[in-house]
Amino acid sequence: MPRASVRDRLLAAGLETLRTQGFNGCGVQDITDAAGVPKGSFYNHFDSKEALGAAVVDQYMRASVQDLSLLQDTAKTPLRRLRAYFAWQVERLVEGRFECGCLLANFAAELADHSPLIRERVAASFTEWSSHIEDVLREAQASGEVAPDVAPDMLATFMLGAWEGAVLRSRVEKGRAPLDAFLRLAFDRSLEQGTPACSQSSG
Amino acid sequence: MPRASVRDRLLAAGLETLRTQGFNGCGVQDITDAAGVPKGSFYNHFDSKEALGAAVVDQYMRASVQDLSLLQDTAKTPLRRLRAYFAWQVERLVEGRFECGCLLANFAAELADHSPLIRERVAASFTEWSSHIEDVLREAQASGEVAPDVAPDMLATFMLGAWEGAVLRSRVEKGRAPLDAFLRLAFDRSLEQGTPACSQSSG
Repeated sequence: MPRASVRDRLLAAGLETLRTQGFNGCGVQDITDAAGVPKGSFYNHFDSKEALGAAVVDQYMRASVQDLSLLQDTAKTPLRRLRAYFAWQVERLVEGRFECGCLLANFAAELADHSPLIRERVAASFTEWSSHIEDVLREAQASGEVAPDVAPDMLATFMLGAWEGAVLRSRVEKGRAPLDAFLRLAFDRSLEQGTPACSQSSG
Repeated sequence: MPRASVRDRLLAAGLETLRTQGFNGCGVQDITDAAGVPKGSFYNHFDSKEALGAAVVDQYMRASVQDLSLLQDTAKTPLRRLRAYFAWQVERLVEGRFECGCLLANFAAELADHSPLIRERVAASFTEWSSHIEDVLREAQASGEVAPDVAPDMLATFMLGAWEGAVLRSRVEKGRAPLDAFLRLAFDRSLEQGTPACSQSSG
């Protein structure tokens, strides 16, 4: 196997270290130690820890491409596909004992007010992720699985927010209840055509 | 006016500094400087920055009591009261240009894996906050404003997650769209009895 380039090793070690320690919870030395490269070589590849952080956001998104492929599984209806995608993420979080959470949310919480560079990269990543969800929702609206009265980009924004908040809460609870509440309510109530509500009086 | 005790000044400065800089983004010195007390006096009141962080979570919850009083405004129906509570928070975030976000979410993202002390305090605060929302939802179910088919604690957990995720996204977007999506969808779709869905075919 060819030896990974120093830059690639720094990116991989940066992703792991920044996810587990937080941006301000580690230094360049921790990252070069994890990458097994001399500290001095860091600055041949990145101007700063912030520049590496921005590159790590892109690396994180590239790594999520395989998960996103679940959204293209046309053996399922659009809405079932979307649910399977989130249900799969829930199982991964449970297996990982709710540790680390989502790098985008972590960087948003820690750096939104401090690093315009990373904030913009996180915003672009959320937009990209949201657009994948939006595509599936648009399909679900066309097929009649989801009511068409709300624009799919607003629905996707809501779904992604509800997801990120559930992930964050599950981390402090060390339990899956917030994720299960998301799966139950984001889908049954917020998206699916509301037959249960129809059986109720409208109050 | 009586001079605030050193402990109270450390708590107030700690809340401000930890909210704006993040836990790992500041040191004890930054907090004692902001409080205008000598660094040495810090350890007469708190064992560590972590101990102050835990106390700051409680301080943050005490400071939110006034906002929560909106949930007791019985001039409005339960659901309108809940919406008014979140709509008020949205306006405050817009006025504050989406800075700082929610201390609980920030600590969750930064410290859930690193400080059991703070993690537990954040978890307890979320639980307390959620129970206030749950009380209003239970009332809304009793009055027929919200369908009774989902347990109010699960609904409250979902609402709070969706809210926290929307706040986080608005911070990186520097815009209110995620918060407006929350107000529109958490209420119209997830909670209110679904007349619009009834007018659609059920697919």
